Amino acid sequence: MNAISKLMRPASVAVIGASADTAKTSGRPVAYLRKHGFDGDIYPVNPRYESIDGLTCYPDIASLPQAPDVGIVLLGAERAHVAVRDLASRGTAAAIVLASGYAEIGEEGAKRQAQLIEAAGSMRVLGPNTIGLVNLTDRITLSASGALETDAFTVGGIGVVSQSGGILGSLLSRAAARGIGLSKLVSTSNEADLDMADFVDYLVDDDSTSVVALYMEGLRHPERFRRAALRAAAAGKPVVVFKIGRSESGARSAVSHTGALAGSDRMYDALFSQIGVIRAQTFSDLLDIPHALATRRKLAGRRIAILTSTGGAGTLVTDSLGMAGFETPPPDEATAAKLRALQTGDHAVLDRNPIDVTLAGLQPALLRGAIGTLLDSPTYDAVAVIVGSSGLAMPDLMAGAIRDSLPGSDKPVMAFVSPHAPEITRLLNEHEVPAFPSPESVTSALAAMWQHGRFRQPTATTGDQHAEAEAEVNVDVSDLPSGSLNEAQAKALFARFGVPVVRERVVTDPDEAASAARELGGKVVLKLLSSTITHKSDVGGVAVGLTADSIGARLDRMRDDVETATGVPANAFLVQEMVSGGTELILGLHRDPLGTALLLGMGGVTAELFKDTTMRLLSADAPFSRDDALEMIHELKTWPLLNGYRGRPRADVDALVSAIVAFARMAVRLGERIVEAEINPIFVLPAGQGVRAADGVAVLASTAVE
Amino acid sequence: MNAISKLMRPASVAVIGASADTAKTSGRPVAYLRKHGFDGDIYPVNPRYESIDGLTCYPDIASLPQAPDVGIVLLGAERAHVAVRDLASRGTAAAIVLASGYAEIGEEGAKRQAQLIEAAGSMRVLGPNTIGLVNLTDRITLSASGALETDAFTVGGIGVVSQSGGILGSLLSRAAARGIGLSKLVSTSNEADLDMADFVDYLVDDDSTSVVALYMEGLRHPERFRRAALRAAAAGKPVVVFKIGRSESGARSAVSHTGALAGSDRMYDALFSQIGVIRAQTFSDLLDIPHALATRRKLAGRRIAILTSTGGAGTLVTDSLGMAGFETPPPDEATAAKLRALQTGDHAVLDRNPIDVTLAGLQPALLRGAIGTLLDSPTYDAVAVIVGSSGLAMPDLMAGAIRDSLPGSDKPVMAFVSPHAPEITRLLNEHEVPAFPSPESVTSALAAMWQHGRFRQPTATTGDQHAEAEAEVNVDVSDLPSGSLNEAQAKALFARFGVPVVRERVVTDPDEAASAARELGGKVVLKLLSSTITHKSDVGGVAVGLTADSIGARLDRMRDDVETATGVPANAFLVQEMVSGGTELILGLHRDPLGTALLLGMGGVTAELFKDTTMRLLSADAPFSRDDALEMIHELKTWPLLNGYRGRPRADVDALVSAIVAFARMAVRLGERIVEAEINPIFVLPAGQGVRAADGVAVLASTAVE
Repeated sequence: MNAISKLMRPASVAVIGASADTAKTSGRPVAYLRKHGFDGDIYPVNPRYESIDGLTCYPDIASLPQAPDVGIVLLGAERAHVAVRDLASRGTAAAIVLASGYAEIGEEGAKRQAQLIEAAGSMRVLGPNTIGLVNLTDRITLSASGALETDAFTVGGIGVVSQSGGILGSLLSRAAARGIGLSKLVSTSNEADLDMADFVDYLVDDDSTSVVALYMEGLRHPERFRRAALRAAAAGKPVVVFKIGRSESGARSAVSHTGALAGSDRMYDALFSQIGVIRAQTFSDLLDIPHALATRRKLAGRRIAILTSTGGAGTLVTDSLGMAGFETPPPDEATAAKLRALQTGDHAVLDRNPIDVTLAGLQPALLRGAIGTLLDSPTYDAVAVIVGSSGLAMPDLMAGAIRDSLPGSDKPVMAFVSPHAPEITRLLNEHEVPAFPSPESVTSALAAMWQHGRFRQPTATTGDQHAEAEAEVNVDVSDLPSGSLNEAQAKALFARFGVPVVRERVVTDPDEAASAARELGGKVVLKLLSSTITHKSDVGGVAVGLTADSIGARLDRMRDDVETATGVPANAFLVQEMVSGGTELILGLHRDPLGTALLLGMGGVTAELFKDTTMRLLSADAPFSRDDALEMIHELKTWPLLNGYRGRPRADVDALVSAIVAFARMAVRLGERIVEAEINPIFVLPAGQGVRAADGVAVLASTAVE
Repeated sequence: MNAISKLMRPASVAVIGASADTAKTSGRPVAYLRKHGFDGDIYPVNPRYESIDGLTCYPDIASLPQAPDVGIVLLGAERAHVAVRDLASRGTAAAIVLASGYAEIGEEGAKRQAQLIEAAGSMRVLGPNTIGLVNLTDRITLSASGALETDAFTVGGIGVVSQSGGILGSLLSRAAARGIGLSKLVSTSNEADLDMADFVDYLVDDDSTSVVALYMEGLRHPERFRRAALRAAAAGKPVVVFKIGRSESGARSAVSHTGALAGSDRMYDALFSQIGVIRAQTFSDLLDIPHALATRRKLAGRRIAILTSTGGAGTLVTDSLGMAGFETPPPDEATAAKLRALQTGDHAVLDRNPIDVTLAGLQPALLRGAIGTLLDSPTYDAVAVIVGSSGLAMPDLMAGAIRDSLPGSDKPVMAFVSPHAPEITRLLNEHEVPAFPSPESVTSALAAMWQHGRFRQPTATTGDQHAEAEAEVNVDVSDLPSGSLNEAQAKALFARFGVPVVRERVVTDPDEAASAARELGGKVVLKLLSSTITHKSDVGGVAVGLTADSIGARLDRMRDDVETATGVPANAFLVQEMVSGGTELILGLHRDPLGTALLLGMGGVTAELFKDTTMRLLSADAPFSRDDALEMIHELKTWPLLNGYRGRPRADVDALVSAIVAFARMAVRLGERIVEAEINPIFVLPAGQGVRAADGVAVLASTAVE
């Protein structure tokens, strides 16, 4: 049994700094362990007591009768490291440190945190600044969370990892009130040692956990998290995350709260979608979505039957589903006939959805029959049942009827409870019918099920494949320059990896320019060539539509303009073929604490205003494929511009895909060595005519990594 | 006392079809009236009983000792109209008809509904298909809603009007559970007679109502609603609406539910924002937002202090606020010093927001001091308090401390309750500290307060002003053509009202075209002129960049092309000045069941893909002003393109404003007579150079309305 397994399921627990006063935080852990039925050994440690609640209390860690599996350290930050050192020297597997006053308060705290970890040696540490963990499966509470005052928890399949202790308590008490079953809850907080990825990994292997729910402020080890999440996906265990930092102020607050690393929120979105992690958009979704996924029912399509006995509430759900792209078609004729056969009311109108069976709430047999009929219907992929006030009088009856109709179908069934009805909500949830107090939750849950069902694991690279990919880009990079490249060098670098670039010549005087123009043919562009002046057009460094006859004079004038504007001599110029009739895109790299991402965006001022861009994190483990590139192109809101919108010619998407893949391979191949790279614009010409990188920048690190 | 006042506060109520069995819906109204303490006369009517629960039961309406103020009709749809006629003939002020089976089920039901209204004569009718109404202020329940089983309601200032009876019950029970105070609740449902506008009007005059909350599926009388909402705004009573129909399927479901009129959801958005109605985006917002507004506290800015004893939950609120554009600045030095003086903990870091006072939950004096300090601080416009698990042990203490800190400031104070804690939530709400179980609700509530505070009544047109506006557009419209106008006629119409159009000449042959081109000077455009062929360029009917020399031959070719493509003779053409260097916009009218709206949009394919448009409903009561036009322009996401984005020349916004106002006046002046009108594109030239309508369509009704 490894240290994390011992931490989650210890046979013995020492509580350092335990108090006999249960009103104090330090009095809680021992009290909760006993109250919730921990059947291992509990060793309170406190020189001020002989015993606590009938348990022998030890004066210090050295006096303990054996090395405990886990030590809960309740001492303040100024003394916690001493207890940690003592626990480590006894051979304890893991310590849980509750004290705050570490990295989250600044530099001084960070030093304290380093000291703490040093004191731990090879012993694992949860925290500091953590509220601990709760293992509901085995009734083991290693926590001071006030939420443990509650007696009744529903044990179930949702494992929770939270970077905030308060949120752990919040989720624990909310789940208990709603009858939502949890397995384990861990607050990782400062993550001085054990972090979110460790516990995701643990939960993947935990038989009692079927879904993982995460409250995340920021990832300290994105690559480890990535691997853990992909293991969860491979094991068929959905991972749902509520991630802070969608706003700048939220990100700042998260960083200062636990000292987590910030990263661009869009990068997190890219990461999550690439590894099959479902992002909860509201705090309530963080329980609601895992709860729906824990039923393990499958959503095979997007057509939802809404069964209601109260018109307005059915309409609420219909509207919310419609906004998320779900369909609510009317019953097919056979289904409508079966529904008609079930009831006698003369006002039932069964040609529409929501399907209004006015008396269903009061007649369990009717309700059971109606749900069964809808689950059998080929028209529907899931059923949402609306609970109105009429069913409240007999909650058991109604919940029972819904539960009874579940076997025989694996389509999702869930409920929106319209009035305040905590009892019926809890009963339904306990009966594995996710019941939500808000209509929007039905939609979030179904959308998450849909997303989960469609995720496909990225193909892992085998050694052979890796070698193949390497061979494919058989590019010599031993002679690369370093530092800021000029435009010609940057494009030459991109071209080396297979990105098509405009034909161009470097020239230094009018004569060279004229012969370059003649060689390239047709109209040409003349540009200043400089690795330091980036906004060439602002200083008069760009001229278009030139010919071999006109270019010489124009070069002289450009030299004067640039020197006047910048005070820097203009010694080199670029003569380029002029590209026209294409669509402008931007292709670049975005580097971030989370990793390096490929960024594809539509060019032109209007698209720029709408920030029409999409991103993919690059990983050496999973090669960037043509499918990935095509998916990115399709994600652009202006994708129709490439696809024949309003009589435009269809663009050469195939060539664009090749260029994106080539650029991605360059990025992976150069790794840390490439600091910045962007093509802006890359022209996508009509089908069959390819793409051309027309301008670009690149910055290479000066020390080669290869 | 008018009929609606009698309906809301009757001295006597007859219950037609009352049952002695309180398990039946028909047994509820009498039982609820008594249970909740109605002190007027109750007359059950049912030939099958002599008495019900000690009350004399009358065999028929004719036998009643006096005409009741209100009759609740519990009979089915096949008999309800008989009772309604009898009540009307006795002189009853209003009847409430609960039966379903009317307009909501289709044509047959619609006939029944017409029969019902005919039977009512001058008596007012609430319903049919309604659950009735509840007057909590006066403890009068005229309803069969199962939500009335609850004993304890909080009486307060929120008046509710719902087009669904189920939703009324849902809101009633949810408010009761949370301690949110309501005044009156009315379910209007089918609105065969009394509608939402009638009750908004009533609530504006109701002293016990300070905020109006609406559940809306669709408006049957938009103009009446508009006036009622503006009366509410004038009275300082916010109106909050949850409106179904954001998705097509939701709109369809709403229409079939109560037979309400559909209208474009964007038109509702335009209407709401123009009359100061706040739109709730989630169902829970429909209680949360009114609840916050009912405190009547004022949000003067967007800087929010977040006071927390639990880091994670504070971060949740910060992140949510940030996404809505609120700021969460750190405390100023004086405020931080005051906060420091309040507490002794050595780990309190007070240079950031959320302001983490770890022990606040357990020390009411500290909490009171901290809230008071933040309310006094010039850095903050509102305070959000986070309730964590630590405060749960003593809910009264905590709620009391927060309440005690309210006097002396009118800044908003609200709470996010992180764990499941219904008791403390209820206590806080009852203490007029809106307490929400979701972090997003804090944001919705503050955003609504901000929106409410910024609404300015549209200036009503006085008779004199109206005359003035008329004079200003002293336009003769007696000679207007009718039907589909051709491009030249459409632009001539727009020009008549003051919209600048491109210079152009109608020609029929090459010679006329050449002389027109000479007259206009420079390069010109040649277009087919037709009122039937709308996509001119698709049939070869547009040529640009022509001169007087080239235009003749080009006209002949165009004639051939168009005739080949369409089979229709091409007899007339338009020669236009060529406009270049401008930004293309679209300006048009959108007609809808809700009214006629002005639509302004950015042109060009990219902006088109993003549907970058904005709308304003036009009303004869409130003239469309230059400020309105400017506001619309600023709402365009691509507004920067007109405002000097990336070195572009600033556009002639002043001229654009004038053109929009002229177009709006044309629309109001022509009223029903103008069926369709659009300028696409209108070129906005650089500042000082004006705008030019370059193409347009207009359809005029054939019968003049003037």
